[in-house]
Amino acid sequence: MKITAPLACAAGLTAALLAATSVAASLPPSPSAVELPQQGKDIAWSITEDLTTEIGPRMAGTEAESAARRWAVARLQALGFANVREEQFDMKVWVRGAEEASLTSPFLPQKLHIAALGNSASTGPKGIEGEIAYFASYDALLAAPDAEVKGKIVFINNQMERTQDGSGYGQYGRGRFMGANAASKKGAIAVVIRSIGTDNHRGPHTGGTNFEAGVKPIPAGALSNPDADQLARQWVRAQAMHTRENETGAIVYVPEPLRMKLVLTPRDLGTKHSGNVIAEVPGSDPAASPVIVACHLDSWDLGTGAIDDAAGCGIITAAAKHVMSAGQPRRTIRILWAGAEEVGVFGGKAYFEKHGTEKHAVALESDFGADRVWRVDFKLPASAKALEDRIAAALAPFGITRGKTPASGGADIGALVAAGVPAIDLQQDGTRYFDLHHTPDDTLDKIDPAQLRQNVVAWTATLAILANSADAELT
Amino acid sequence: MKITAPLACAAGLTAALLAATSVAASLPPSPSAVELPQQGKDIAWSITEDLTTEIGPRMAGTEAESAARRWAVARLQALGFANVREEQFDMKVWVRGAEEASLTSPFLPQKLHIAALGNSASTGPKGIEGEIAYFASYDALLAAPDAEVKGKIVFINNQMERTQDGSGYGQYGRGRFMGANAASKKGAIAVVIRSIGTDNHRGPHTGGTNFEAGVKPIPAGALSNPDADQLARQWVRAQAMHTRENETGAIVYVPEPLRMKLVLTPRDLGTKHSGNVIAEVPGSDPAASPVIVACHLDSWDLGTGAIDDAAGCGIITAAAKHVMSAGQPRRTIRILWAGAEEVGVFGGKAYFEKHGTEKHAVALESDFGADRVWRVDFKLPASAKALEDRIAAALAPFGITRGKTPASGGADIGALVAAGVPAIDLQQDGTRYFDLHHTPDDTLDKIDPAQLRQNVVAWTATLAILANSADAELT
Repeated sequence: MKITAPLACAAGLTAALLAATSVAASLPPSPSAVELPQQGKDIAWSITEDLTTEIGPRMAGTEAESAARRWAVARLQALGFANVREEQFDMKVWVRGAEEASLTSPFLPQKLHIAALGNSASTGPKGIEGEIAYFASYDALLAAPDAEVKGKIVFINNQMERTQDGSGYGQYGRGRFMGANAASKKGAIAVVIRSIGTDNHRGPHTGGTNFEAGVKPIPAGALSNPDADQLARQWVRAQAMHTRENETGAIVYVPEPLRMKLVLTPRDLGTKHSGNVIAEVPGSDPAASPVIVACHLDSWDLGTGAIDDAAGCGIITAAAKHVMSAGQPRRTIRILWAGAEEVGVFGGKAYFEKHGTEKHAVALESDFGADRVWRVDFKLPASAKALEDRIAAALAPFGITRGKTPASGGADIGALVAAGVPAIDLQQDGTRYFDLHHTPDDTLDKIDPAQLRQNVVAWTATLAILANSADAELT
Repeated sequence: MKITAPLACAAGLTAALLAATSVAASLPPSPSAVELPQQGKDIAWSITEDLTTEIGPRMAGTEAESAARRWAVARLQALGFANVREEQFDMKVWVRGAEEASLTSPFLPQKLHIAALGNSASTGPKGIEGEIAYFASYDALLAAPDAEVKGKIVFINNQMERTQDGSGYGQYGRGRFMGANAASKKGAIAVVIRSIGTDNHRGPHTGGTNFEAGVKPIPAGALSNPDADQLARQWVRAQAMHTRENETGAIVYVPEPLRMKLVLTPRDLGTKHSGNVIAEVPGSDPAASPVIVACHLDSWDLGTGAIDDAAGCGIITAAAKHVMSAGQPRRTIRILWAGAEEVGVFGGKAYFEKHGTEKHAVALESDFGADRVWRVDFKLPASAKALEDRIAAALAPFGITRGKTPASGGADIGALVAAGVPAIDLQQDGTRYFDLHHTPDDTLDKIDPAQLRQNVVAWTATLAILANSADAELT
């Protein structure tokens, strides 16, 4: 969908935004104007470009994530925010090692592209070799008798489908989240999954897997979709490799084993520092609870974390800056660039431990790429009906519809929302998000500047209204 | 462009093809019917799927290419062709080793995706580190004084543009073909190029580079486009890293060096066997010269060689089979699955050495992917005007226009065409070819079955006419 048309005319945008925010003009103090992102190198783009270029991959708990925090503090200070600070916490760190996979039988060896999943065990440098136990889905693995799995390398082949709202991730992602755990319990020596992704390129989709307490971690990796296709095609051929007559004279198939060699040598580095970076637009009313807006600073290590989640940090920060530039809002806007989201939401949990007892007016997060906002969802108190209407009216000119699903917040504000903090979701178009998510392809060139600007416009309009809302509207 | 509509109706296709070939019905013996490729697993698809699945990458001179020849002989015999044989030749073999690149300064180290170019020298296992000498293009490198290059790692950044006819390859490809040679002559320690490709994924485009006699081979690799973008962005920042006042009080930039660590350990394996695989549809007239149709069996090692060139072998072979099934043609159709094309057209040269003195009626090659044929070009004797008209008329219903460019043939028939053998080019749509060419992404899923079938239809129509043409038409 082309969305450049509504963004082409800055004058029209300004008028629309002012009209939208002026609904709240009776509430003190209202922004008299909102600085709008312009064509070219706006704040959101600059944050995204500079962070992904100068730091690049920012794996949680590593020196790169630490450098990213220093970079973030400097950038947020340079943008004029107040109370810019780092809040450290400790976490256990897992890092990738060597990664090789090949199909070794019944055909000549062929290399596959693989990436270890977070928390994968190591095969050791010499690797392991084993027969593939093929499962069409995670459910098929769960249903299989242990004897089909024991001593084998489990392969889970379910193919994620493309959706606008990303709803396939939870369903198809189970093979990644829990497949290794299930396979280990049945005696598998390793697990290999089809990437949880919708593209057909050779970069695998990494991501975390989890073992229950008492379950032995085993090596776990994801193949790219074309590599999973290749494995599946060889599996079909191996199944049909030999035929022979059985005792009744009928032709029966005698499958050849499909075998894989696997080398994955990730390491646990023990406990290391990570941290959140926080900055604020101080509100004029010290008694008013703050609006919290979140993204995450860390990224997986395969790409440079452009869509996940440098762009999210760019969007929320640019919006806060535009509201700040328009005049001091009533409520404080607190910006949270969370650390260590990808590997277990450690930053979000640390924020909640430190600040969970403070009152927050409302929480929002941007962590679903940089494509346009297409829907707004609310989870606000009943008193906020008029506020919801104002926000929905402000967003409508930018092609954003009002959803019927309650907002769920993002990972980093998840603990706050679970504790009752109201939330608003500016839902981004996820149609191509899982082409890139957790892959080497998550790089700056995938960001569409026009759609990034639409995000900033939507966030600016929403934040301007929220930060100037009355207490009676968010109780 | 959707091309399914004209392919949707097999009945219509049959009628159109018969109408086309019936123009030649006065020439003995004419095909009474042509077996048409159907939906589903047709011959071209099966060859492409089976070769890329059961053999996979087929680097020239390796055991995989040798296995591919055995596979090819068995498949061509199973399809019922005559005189199926392997014609061996010897060649020098180069194979890939370890491949690592990272930017090490002025920022924290960041890994880049790199692939060695064919004929690259080795850095040794410990690698080399050096300052980047940045050039926007191959021409800029040529124009540079040696002092700007000596002791450095040359980077050539020119970005190939997308075209339908692939015409950008020669122009933008010079940096790959000759950049390492030029850099070595100026004293560079290595050369790294932006991939000669039009995609934005992380798989680099490999391909051969060449050193003139007497020029010292140096390590040479290609970065993926997103990695080249990253290098270029860091280069800009490094250039602007420091400013100081000069003696006149003006602010001048003092660039930081941008540095790269490079590990490439390819090896020369010495002289090994490669070979061509040849099969024939014997013609009814022993005095008539044969039609030769070519593809190449080898592939680069990063992908499975689906578009380059398993599909080409599938297309020409399916077309020859369809003509054969329709009744014995007048001329022999000789099918050449050439070996070792990618690394120096050794198969085409070996064929010419062995068969170049035989008379060939006309030569055609399919080696530009599997997207639809959109244009037909001729390089035929003046006597062939009516023949050209018949072929153009037969192809027109399938959306194929008549070009004004003389046919140039393909690499494997290049020596024949240079020696005067007439040629016809069934030009394929190359719009997305250089997204995939020589990358890990050259895999089966990139083949569009509908467009593959259109190729087979176009080739079948053309071959049916050519194989039944009179001597007076091709003299």
